[in-house]
Amino acid sequence: MKMPAKTPAPPYYAVIFTSIRTKEDAAGYDATAGKLAELAASMPGFLGAESVRDADGFGLTVSYWDSEEAIGNWKRNAQHQDAWPMREQWYDRYELRVCRVERASRFPDIMP
Amino acid sequence: MKMPAKTPAPPYYAVIFTSIRTKEDAAGYDATAGKLAELAASMPGFLGAESVRDADGFGLTVSYWDSEEAIGNWKRNAQHQDAWPMREQWYDRYELRVCRVERASRFPDIMP
Repeated sequence: MKMPAKTPAPPYYAVIFTSIRTKEDAAGYDATAGKLAELAASMPGFLGAESVRDADGFGLTVSYWDSEEAIGNWKRNAQHQDAWPMREQWYDRYELRVCRVERASRFPDIMP
Repeated sequence: MKMPAKTPAPPYYAVIFTSIRTKEDAAGYDATAGKLAELAASMPGFLGAESVRDADGFGLTVSYWDSEEAIGNWKRNAQHQDAWPMREQWYDRYELRVCRVERASRFPDIMP
């Protein structure tokens, strides 16, 4: 069962990745996405991630990081960069937004 | 077809709402969610929204706003607040994060 990421008290950083998948290369995409998710989780400064995609291919993935430096390290990671040439085959389009999380609240109101 | 929100050049603000629906009151929830989405879109400072939920009830909704003041106005909106007493019936849990979007990029690399 997916759960909200257990992030610390703000401030921290979020990368919002909004994407529309093509219908191409489902097996290759899934394999790489799985590997990259594992790799991201092993990177310094990784705090968690949340991801969901609907049947039409519209997806939202939010990853959380403790600093902009950690996000930069992930962006420059060699295996992550290997996926870059595939973007035209895998995505109709995407938008990537880097944010500073200023405050957070939750229900039930228990600390993570 | 859902598309990434057409947001302006940063900075602007994002509210990341990560939630797990109960299985209760699907009709009531859907009706209220639809009304609140329309109402949010009519609020000053609203820039767009992206939302997706999987079959297990795990959902991500990100709304974009031009200022923290606009987010505060939306939070205090009376109709929005009417939904507050329903949260225990509708959600197993949720996490709400308010962020400042610092930078953005996209593919294909055309301005929105």
